[in-house]
Amino acid sequence: MYNYKKLNKQNILKEGENMIKVGIVGATGYVGEELIRILLHHPEVKISFATSKSYAGQSMDLIYGHFREKCSLICMKDDWESLSEEADVIFLALPHGIASHKITDSLLQKTKMIDLGADYRLKDQKTYEDWYQTVHGSPHLLQKGVYGLCEWYREDIQQSSLIANPGCYTTCSILSLAPLVKENLIKPETIIIDAKSGVTGAGRSLNLANHFTECNESLKAYKVAAHRHTPEIEEQLSKIGHTSICLTFTPHLVPMNRGIFVTAYASIKNGVTEKQIRQAYKTYYDKETFIRLLPEGVYPETRWVKGSNYCDISLTLDKRTGRVIVLGTLDNLVKGAAGQAVQNMNLLFDFPETMGLEATPIFPI
Amino acid sequence: MYNYKKLNKQNILKEGENMIKVGIVGATGYVGEELIRILLHHPEVKISFATSKSYAGQSMDLIYGHFREKCSLICMKDDWESLSEEADVIFLALPHGIASHKITDSLLQKTKMIDLGADYRLKDQKTYEDWYQTVHGSPHLLQKGVYGLCEWYREDIQQSSLIANPGCYTTCSILSLAPLVKENLIKPETIIIDAKSGVTGAGRSLNLANHFTECNESLKAYKVAAHRHTPEIEEQLSKIGHTSICLTFTPHLVPMNRGIFVTAYASIKNGVTEKQIRQAYKTYYDKETFIRLLPEGVYPETRWVKGSNYCDISLTLDKRTGRVIVLGTLDNLVKGAAGQAVQNMNLLFDFPETMGLEATPIFPI
Amino acid sequence: MYNYKKLNKQNILKEGENMIKVGIVGATGYVGEELIRILLHHPEVKISFATSKSYAGQSMDLIYGHFREKCSLICMKDDWESLSEEADVIFLALPHGIASHKITDSLLQKTKMIDLGADYRLKDQKTYEDWYQTVHGSPHLLQKGVYGLCEWYREDIQQSSLIANPGCYTTCSILSLAPLVKENLIKPETIIIDAKSGVTGAGRSLNLANHFTECNESLKAYKVAAHRHTPEIEEQLSKIGHTSICLTFTPHLVPMNRGIFVTAYASIKNGVTEKQIRQAYKTYYDKETFIRLLPEGVYPETRWVKGSNYCDISLTLDKRTGRVIVLGTLDNLVKGAAGQAVQNMNLLFDFPETMGLEATPIFPI
Amino acid sequence: MYNYKKLNKQNILKEGENMIKVGIVGATGYVGEELIRILLHHPEVKISFATSKSYAGQSMDLIYGHFREKCSLICMKDDWESLSEEADVIFLALPHGIASHKITDSLLQKTKMIDLGADYRLKDQKTYEDWYQTVHGSPHLLQKGVYGLCEWYREDIQQSSLIANPGCYTTCSILSLAPLVKENLIKPETIIIDAKSGVTGAGRSLNLANHFTECNESLKAYKVAAHRHTPEIEEQLSKIGHTSICLTFTPHLVPMNRGIFVTAYASIKNGVTEKQIRQAYKTYYDKETFIRLLPEGVYPETRWVKGSNYCDISLTLDKRTGRVIVLGTLDNLVKGAAGQAVQNMNLLFDFPETMGLEATPIFPI
Repeated sequence: MYNYKKLNKQNILKEGENMIKVGIVGATGYVGEELIRILLHHPEVKISFATSKSYAGQSMDLIYGHFREKCSLICMKDDWESLSEEADVIFLALPHGIASHKITDSLLQKTKMIDLGADYRLKDQKTYEDWYQTVHGSPHLLQKGVYGLCEWYREDIQQSSLIANPGCYTTCSILSLAPLVKENLIKPETIIIDAKSGVTGAGRSLNLANHFTECNESLKAYKVAAHRHTPEIEEQLSKIGHTSICLTFTPHLVPMNRGIFVTAYASIKNGVTEKQIRQAYKTYYDKETFIRLLPEGVYPETRWVKGSNYCDISLTLDKRTGRVIVLGTLDNLVKGAAGQAVQNMNLLFDFPETMGLEATPIFPI
Repeated sequence: MYNYKKLNKQNILKEGENMIKVGIVGATGYVGEELIRILLHHPEVKISFATSKSYAGQSMDLIYGHFREKCSLICMKDDWESLSEEADVIFLALPHGIASHKITDSLLQKTKMIDLGADYRLKDQKTYEDWYQTVHGSPHLLQKGVYGLCEWYREDIQQSSLIANPGCYTTCSILSLAPLVKENLIKPETIIIDAKSGVTGAGRSLNLANHFTECNESLKAYKVAAHRHTPEIEEQLSKIGHTSICLTFTPHLVPMNRGIFVTAYASIKNGVTEKQIRQAYKTYYDKETFIRLLPEGVYPETRWVKGSNYCDISLTLDKRTGRVIVLGTLDNLVKGAAGQAVQNMNLLFDFPETMGLEATPIFPI
Repeated sequence: MYNYKKLNKQNILKEGENMIKVGIVGATGYVGEELIRILLHHPEVKISFATSKSYAGQSMDLIYGHFREKCSLICMKDDWESLSEEADVIFLALPHGIASHKITDSLLQKTKMIDLGADYRLKDQKTYEDWYQTVHGSPHLLQKGVYGLCEWYREDIQQSSLIANPGCYTTCSILSLAPLVKENLIKPETIIIDAKSGVTGAGRSLNLANHFTECNESLKAYKVAAHRHTPEIEEQLSKIGHTSICLTFTPHLVPMNRGIFVTAYASIKNGVTEKQIRQAYKTYYDKETFIRLLPEGVYPETRWVKGSNYCDISLTLDKRTGRVIVLGTLDNLVKGAAGQAVQNMNLLFDFPETMGLEATPIFPI
Repeated sequence: MYNYKKLNKQNILKEGENMIKVGIVGATGYVGEELIRILLHHPEVKISFATSKSYAGQSMDLIYGHFREKCSLICMKDDWESLSEEADVIFLALPHGIASHKITDSLLQKTKMIDLGADYRLKDQKTYEDWYQTVHGSPHLLQKGVYGLCEWYREDIQQSSLIANPGCYTTCSILSLAPLVKENLIKPETIIIDAKSGVTGAGRSLNLANHFTECNESLKAYKVAAHRHTPEIEEQLSKIGHTSICLTFTPHLVPMNRGIFVTAYASIKNGVTEKQIRQAYKTYYDKETFIRLLPEGVYPETRWVKGSNYCDISLTLDKRTGRVIVLGTLDNLVKGAAGQAVQNMNLLFDFPETMGLEATPIFPI
């Protein structure tokens, strides 16, 4: 296997020689193909294989026309043991409930795993099994899996071989609220997250709700007070804030392709000033490349982050009611999935954290 | 002038003979033309005139191609005194700050007025002037103007000659929350309204924010904690609940043509049960034609009300947090503007309240 | 059964008593539910039954939320013999290849049939079987079925009991070109039809191509030189023009819900003048309620016909190349399907041809 | 000034030291900002200045939120003489009729110019003045300006200092048809181009037609038989085919942000075979990086080229009518404008032609 720690970049002679090898399991969903798009341009990476249950044997550029002349990988079937031999890191872009039955200690000794699904995000087996209504296949690995929210767990990630890449709603929600709970500025029982998502968040599987003429030109809420990202947000904010947090989370479906938008509400504690609030965000995010704190009075819009790994955040203090309103937005397929997974990979392999993720957002698109 | 109270419907012989005459001031905005669309099919109404500042002298069917062979009214300039002679009722679809300088007691003796703008909605002159940053032109008429939320003020409306037709966000927000405050079931200081609107809500005036490629495929919040519909919602809910209500209201712009969607949150009072909450809505809305209470577990979607005067409402109790989440939706140009205005007109003239408003919503469109 | 010819409208006493009874087979596709929407407001019609293969036993308002409190018909299974007893006319909104195996002479003696599918549109069995790749189940009825393009075959329709309601692309294409071929003004071998359709044209069945995120924000052509509406257009134009016409037809999918737009090209014959061309359209369409000829320089837009039974048409003579360019547009679910079917029903039952179809187009929606 | 011809790439030591300096005049339209997005990632380029008439003095990242932390250039006013001192090449992204009055021989001695407007595309002054209804300011430079369609005029471009960057419709139309006319395979008088564009093609200037709710969910044709790209296409195809070509061109507006789609029709000459047609395209395009010839039966879709410099092309022979149907698509802001301009710059400065343009298309977005 490749010893990336000893890589001497200045001695690279032939393209690809010292690149790490990556595999993608579940490559033909939107998250999988977005991973490919990003990794194709990552200078330290070579894609070894891509697997697909539904498209095994087919070429990526026939499945996705934008890959023509860019990526003609043939999708393979999953063969976990042998695949792990062929990659330094494997990205798993699978529905929940599969990864936990496949990942083993022995696999983790051969290769690193970045799971973009839900199986290792929640640390409590029962919480997982209650919310996902399925049995967890490897509960002993729950603690081993590091929650891959790079801005908050950078050091833990670097030490790990199993990363639980956060969900799209979750990333946006936690990044938006974490400084407030960390600095103890809000009443934790007052948090409400009203979240909005573009339709790619629902994936590529066919169902009537995402048929063009059923969701175009319409808005709806769904899984009200019952969405599975709720306990994930609660667990992480509780951990960051050293307090038990129970909150209301309401997701909505917006007729657009990409984008997560979070409108988070919380009542500030007595005596807390707007200045303290703004300072908390500066403390944690001022040096973060992928978080852009917006100036007062400027609000995020999903269009400004499309195709990029940015999370844009703004703060408003509603003085009439004593609430802080935090607006956060990100591209659900990038910072909310594939981009953050590559950011995690960069941390795991000691590459510059932003490598392969520097693209300027693209607008209007 | 026409004495509608004495109308004997069974004696109608010729079409139009006993119809009331209506005028529309500001007919070429989206609200104005939607009024025309509805009134063209109202069996008791004849449109006498339509005025337009920007399109005076032009024919409606050249301004709006869908009116070809349906409405070739020539838009006139406003001449308030003479126009009031020609109509039993005048609809005003104007930007705020104009109507209050035009409407006088003497005009109101000649004709009834339904103002679709903001000038007579707030009952306190100072609140109006603070939020709208303009001087009110006829504060002595503020108390005379009845707030035209038909389901709650039906009897007052019938006695009035000046109706303040509620705004689109407002109608949806108040209808969604009123039973809770009326029955004293929630802690009033915990109300948060997270509202979403289609782009017709922003009108037809050109500005960069509503240029197709600037708002298509994007979501944003705007006027956070500062939208002018906030005091209107607060005033009405305070009145209905007999308590002073101060709430947080956050509007968002959704890339679709029509629709208002409200996600309202409030903490329930100790001891209040879900059954009590559901009963409150049944009490006030079960017999209302234009409010459809959805069964438990069914959530509203803007697509189901398009082109109709319906407001769909559903309730969810988030037992984990003790919050009730009320979802409401309506078509901003119909129940949120022109449809409700016609509903008010029906009340004013003793027509069946649903007359001209019975259209089934149209889907998929 | 009801004797509609003897109906004395002035003697109607109770609502519904003398209404005709209609049935809808295949009621839960977009065409079926649009039929219901229109028929609910038709003053001479009562819906007796609606059938559905996939939703049998379910209520229309649970399948389609906009029907709540408007239509709670329970969908039945098809039982052709018994159903025909219960309706004066049956609308068939089925995929091609089913109706021809169900309709029989004995059924047609009991009830009239308006087939919104393709089975009786083409008069030549072989052409049908070649293009649709299926066996026709009742070829002896092909000549009996009258092509239901009301503006051109009004009298034949009135005499028939089996109507082949034209397709959406077809209606728009034929209406756009018929006066030119009828009056022999163009070289028939030069006709090219470049057609564009909204996504409802593809129906409600799930497939990847119509998944929101696959067709939103994209345009494509499909079935190039191979679409099944081609022979239907050719057959009708050949019949109208008394000459054999072979043309090129290219359909495109546009990311919007409703609308057909046809851009038709043909070289004019030597000596033909623009005046002659315009006169031809006036001759055939000036008195047609549902065809709106646009003034010179005004082009159709799909938005101006939405929700209505109109077909808007404009003409441009490209003098540089000697081509006439005809632009036509209609709402594919109304004039392109359900609306035209109701227009046919009105002809069959001697109702005013526009009854139930007078709605003003709705904009912006 | 920088001598790019002598650049020894292997000796680059410090970033930026040997980069060329580029300026952008008219930087705040969609083409200008797309140029910036591409150039920010071009390894041999440094942006010296950006000018804007409407936003002079403002920072790019306040005008366009996606540029936050990516580009904070302050827009300058135009001062042609001094600006030309500061750049090795200047991109002009201006409305037509301005550049021709500004560019002079003396300016062209100081710097290269890539004009993304229309002023130097047509070689005949009268044709320009007829179609654009304005006086050309520097007709003596018309012959000097090389038409910047890289795939066809690569060598001329390399020798030039004034590039007339083709329009978006034009690029797609010419690339789609050129092999047919070059190889004399079609009857030139039969060419019809039915073109469709996303709304960014109309630019950022406000007008009612591009207000969100006016063009969303609608399709229309415009400037029928009268669009200014017509003579540009005719001139270039005539030149390539060594014959005088007069064709019909019809543009349509599609409710999506990006993308040009061309459906071109022509009758093939007697005896021409499908094989010959396919071979012609292979001859000219097989080695072109930015042209992707699609396999038989695969059609282009605008979604597959978004954000990239690709032009995808497919061929269908309609054997029934003897017509070839060529489908072409590209991203109007990339290959149709800014991307092709950078491709031209690469040719001018002897950089690899694909430099800065290698991005994989992004989907779904």
